[in-house]
Amino acid sequence: MLIRQLTIIGVGLIGGSLARALRAAGAVETVVGAGRSAEHLAKAQELGVIDRYSTDLAAAVDGADVVVVGVPLGAMRPVFAAIRPALRPDAVLTDVGSGKGSVVADARAAFGALPAGFVPGHPIAGTEKSGVEASFAELFQRRRVIITPVEESAPAATATVRAMWEACGAEVVEMGVEHHDEVLAATSHLPHILAFGLVDTLARWDSSEEVFRYAAGGFRDFTRIASSDPVMWRDISVANREALAQALERYLQDLEGLLAAVRAGDAERLEQVFRHAKAVRDRFAGMLEK
Amino acid sequence: MLIRQLTIIGVGLIGGSLARALRAAGAVETVVGAGRSAEHLAKAQELGVIDRYSTDLAAAVDGADVVVVGVPLGAMRPVFAAIRPALRPDAVLTDVGSGKGSVVADARAAFGALPAGFVPGHPIAGTEKSGVEASFAELFQRRRVIITPVEESAPAATATVRAMWEACGAEVVEMGVEHHDEVLAATSHLPHILAFGLVDTLARWDSSEEVFRYAAGGFRDFTRIASSDPVMWRDISVANREALAQALERYLQDLEGLLAAVRAGDAERLEQVFRHAKAVRDRFAGMLEK
Repeated sequence: MLIRQLTIIGVGLIGGSLARALRAAGAVETVVGAGRSAEHLAKAQELGVIDRYSTDLAAAVDGADVVVVGVPLGAMRPVFAAIRPALRPDAVLTDVGSGKGSVVADARAAFGALPAGFVPGHPIAGTEKSGVEASFAELFQRRRVIITPVEESAPAATATVRAMWEACGAEVVEMGVEHHDEVLAATSHLPHILAFGLVDTLARWDSSEEVFRYAAGGFRDFTRIASSDPVMWRDISVANREALAQALERYLQDLEGLLAAVRAGDAERLEQVFRHAKAVRDRFAGMLEK
Repeated sequence: MLIRQLTIIGVGLIGGSLARALRAAGAVETVVGAGRSAEHLAKAQELGVIDRYSTDLAAAVDGADVVVVGVPLGAMRPVFAAIRPALRPDAVLTDVGSGKGSVVADARAAFGALPAGFVPGHPIAGTEKSGVEASFAELFQRRRVIITPVEESAPAATATVRAMWEACGAEVVEMGVEHHDEVLAATSHLPHILAFGLVDTLARWDSSEEVFRYAAGGFRDFTRIASSDPVMWRDISVANREALAQALERYLQDLEGLLAAVRAGDAERLEQVFRHAKAVRDRFAGMLEK
């Protein structure tokens, strides 16, 4: 058995799917859920996702050999502070946050010296849905999980986190914290900001009802991520603000160039950009569709 | 029989699907294809989409009671000029262009006085794929087709265009030319520019290979429309440049505000925008999923 007691703090889409996947793989004995809402945790227990739960985080991590923190980035620091007294010295501690720099900073602030069992992680998986009701065991199959071990991370702890995600069918890759945050700002955080922003902009138009009525499939796909959890994305945007601001700035500059080309009716320039984008998108489509 | 001879100039995804749908509905007797590439038209004939074809546009419209022009917006004017001498005086002439102001201007330039049979149209349907190979009879089922009759359009011609699309299973709505172009700039042209622009921006990053490798489902959906036909979208961007530039400008202003909020770590402002966007997206999701 890979994990005897797994404690998941924040049993949502990701935490719930992790529990289901590890159970399905026979890789975990007992799953303890923790969080603020007893009602929500009772629901997770009812669904068979967790065996038992507690809203007392210290009590929930007591005896755990692996602790996974799946709360929004803005809640990481108080969670780390709350579990610190109860965490077994040999426990493995990881998280699923979409930004890694802020999680490491929060852990440092809460723990002082980082525990050797601490290995930050980030599964590149999810849907625009959230909550344990949306969780399913196959969510991580053939998906990538990025882990970003820090200097303090013990090799054995890194190996356990890797094995845990591999048991869920994921491909695990290691990356530096800063590099992770730059890459994710570009491919995930920026598109979310753009989609939320576009829907917000259009909804404030006079004829917004009509605008949406004539939207087609392209618009539906483009704005799907604007149905994502606002609190989670608020926290990600704040936690990874430096890399995100940089990516957004760069994009805004390019968009200003496109606006000038549209205004000037510069067909050649527009075609060049569109052709390049299509070639790249098509080339990576196979990779993205996987 | 609704249409005895239908001539489709530009037998691509839209033109090909229209032919297939009308055939399936028993609403057309003969479909004549026209375009520049004999090879492409032979393929369409082989697929059973058209009965015969000609690369001579005037010859192709000869005898047609309905002519549908399905070429990129930039090719409309020469097509109108080429068919003018051969068009039956009582023929119905429509198009499927994504911008309507430019099509009306091109028709005026080519015809002088607009023919009474001219009724501009725009089916709100399509995929990121293009070409007759991607066409299918069900493309327009339960989709909206906007028609924008002009002052010169004869009521009987408008009725025929409406009946043609309804035979394909579409819901037909009428709208003014300018209003159509504003609404489509917002829901279709702007998102395409944004998606093309994002992929282009990211592809020019140093670590772009890696950037795409760690992209997830959200990014895949968000950038799907960047696989669309670059020439078609170049033409749309130029043809509808006024409304598109206005929409893009408005969005850029809002994005500057979001950038400032990200830089300042203004969680409250970000959450407000994200919540609003999610509420609107969720509210319209049912409508969009249809």
